Amino acid sequence: MRGDRVQLDHGSGGEASQELVCDIFLRRLRNDYLEKMDDSALVDLPGCRLAMTTDSYVVDPIFFPGGDIGALAVHGTINDLSMQGARPMFLTLGLILEEGFALEDLKRVIDSVATASKEADVKIVAGDTKVVPRGHADRIFINTAGIGIVPPGVRVGADNAQPGDVVIINGTIGDHGLAVMTRREGLALEAEIHSDSAPLNALTEAALQAGGPGLHVLRDPTRGGVATALNEIARLSGVRIELAEKDLPVAPAVESACELLGLDPLYVANEGKCLLIAHPAGAPAVLEALRGHPLGHGARIIGKVRAARRPGVLLKTRVGGTRILSMLTGEQLPRIC
Amino acid sequence: MRGDRVQLDHGSGGEASQELVCDIFLRRLRNDYLEKMDDSALVDLPGCRLAMTTDSYVVDPIFFPGGDIGALAVHGTINDLSMQGARPMFLTLGLILEEGFALEDLKRVIDSVATASKEADVKIVAGDTKVVPRGHADRIFINTAGIGIVPPGVRVGADNAQPGDVVIINGTIGDHGLAVMTRREGLALEAEIHSDSAPLNALTEAALQAGGPGLHVLRDPTRGGVATALNEIARLSGVRIELAEKDLPVAPAVESACELLGLDPLYVANEGKCLLIAHPAGAPAVLEALRGHPLGHGARIIGKVRAARRPGVLLKTRVGGTRILSMLTGEQLPRIC
Repeated sequence: MRGDRVQLDHGSGGEASQELVCDIFLRRLRNDYLEKMDDSALVDLPGCRLAMTTDSYVVDPIFFPGGDIGALAVHGTINDLSMQGARPMFLTLGLILEEGFALEDLKRVIDSVATASKEADVKIVAGDTKVVPRGHADRIFINTAGIGIVPPGVRVGADNAQPGDVVIINGTIGDHGLAVMTRREGLALEAEIHSDSAPLNALTEAALQAGGPGLHVLRDPTRGGVATALNEIARLSGVRIELAEKDLPVAPAVESACELLGLDPLYVANEGKCLLIAHPAGAPAVLEALRGHPLGHGARIIGKVRAARRPGVLLKTRVGGTRILSMLTGEQLPRIC
Repeated sequence: MRGDRVQLDHGSGGEASQELVCDIFLRRLRNDYLEKMDDSALVDLPGCRLAMTTDSYVVDPIFFPGGDIGALAVHGTINDLSMQGARPMFLTLGLILEEGFALEDLKRVIDSVATASKEADVKIVAGDTKVVPRGHADRIFINTAGIGIVPPGVRVGADNAQPGDVVIINGTIGDHGLAVMTRREGLALEAEIHSDSAPLNALTEAALQAGGPGLHVLRDPTRGGVATALNEIARLSGVRIELAEKDLPVAPAVESACELLGLDPLYVANEGKCLLIAHPAGAPAVLEALRGHPLGHGARIIGKVRAARRPGVLLKTRVGGTRILSMLTGEQLPRIC
């Protein structure tokens, strides 16, 4: 690994994060569960199969258009469970608070946790709060861990994309990252960008019912964006994924803000989006199910899966060229979730 | 609640923590699971009953005699599950790292996580790493969440202490808190104090087998110490607990350090201690089981449970007096775990 200190890009969700995970964590903690490197782990218990996951949230600012750190912490963990085809059931809530943090803000965050968990029909069953002296943390950090039940017969995973499959997304990309960045930087845009932060469990349940065993992969493109998530899938499945630039849904406000900030929406974090990879025969039913749900009105096919000797992601550009989409390198947006 | 800002004592594990939990968290997130306010939640899934818990670790310094933040994070969550009579199975690991944290230190911490989880026969199945810019956190914070299987028929809980029961502890008190404090403050003591940080799952399993349904309560006296943990039990069970000062095991080095620092070992955090409350008929078998385990050689009876109109904890002092032991008030030792 480069250097001898933790760098911001070790938390980017991109290449440096992968390096940290492989060189430091996997090497020391290796087991069959962790090795899969999926959004959540599948564990078998007597009588049921569970998905289990954890995520810490350090987003700055803690309140942003379309969401806040509390809702985000609930949505993110629900979504990681949903991406295994699990029905999210129980969450834990671990808070690290900075001395001096306003109790009014804490109440607002916890109200948001309560609303988000109620909406998604999950329960917060255990919690923990630590307080550190002023200057030892930045206001509030939240960890949520969660478990969900994986129904018998459900089998989706990032290693399960197959040549011939199509790649579907449920709506526009880049909204969350840009909502946070424009608020943090105080950019005045013509149209305010709202985070897409949302619980995807009902949406993925509908897609699984419609797609059955033909639905092969579910993945939420959070840190590192769509390009990084698809690279992970390509690598784990040993396939090439081809995206068509003309089919990528990007909201006009996100597109202009990206131009202004020099960002590529394909690498920007989403918190209410899901990549679905399905057998082409099942794709129309999956699309119909997605479009029937409020979070899937904009669902569409954005690419396809090919057999390949070297796994990777290709973008067919609007002008007819082809560009390799690597994983995110560098830290594009620190503290984005 | 006093004031409008988070204060250090909101994280003490004592009275102010309780206030925060009741006024802000329970009021907003209330459900049958959270309401129990036990060390971990019991949740029923098809085919099995699970305990589930979370804890964040912000201990300073991160390396201290007898342990470090990595082992502590594993032990703490294992112990919270064990206190429900559960067999800890799977843990998640959420890291928040400060930009610039030495990778050598990170490796040492993760080595320690690996050793501790192997020793206790639990698996880390999922993880997450966030990096925040320099100055937004202090080196490393760790969250561990975990699940464990509760064997059929096991029923222990902090609300289950009954008049006539005896109170047992598996060894000396105050070691963890003093090990961290003396290292943090750079105190040179004649004898170095080592943290008691240890996984208690094998010990509690042995105690449960020996005590059967006569073993009513298991609780680990972490933040807030023995006095605070017993107050919680007294309140939840509606009983009075009487401790005999002469029977409290305190290591001589801890006793002198406490005198030096003006601390009461009854309020100092432990990380490898367990309070067990059992029917007197079953107590000898429980004591024997504890003493047969390396972490229970010093097990002994330290008090008893009485019926009472007003729940609380009393200390019979060495000189024959009686003193009310309240919950911890104020923040005795910030960042102790």
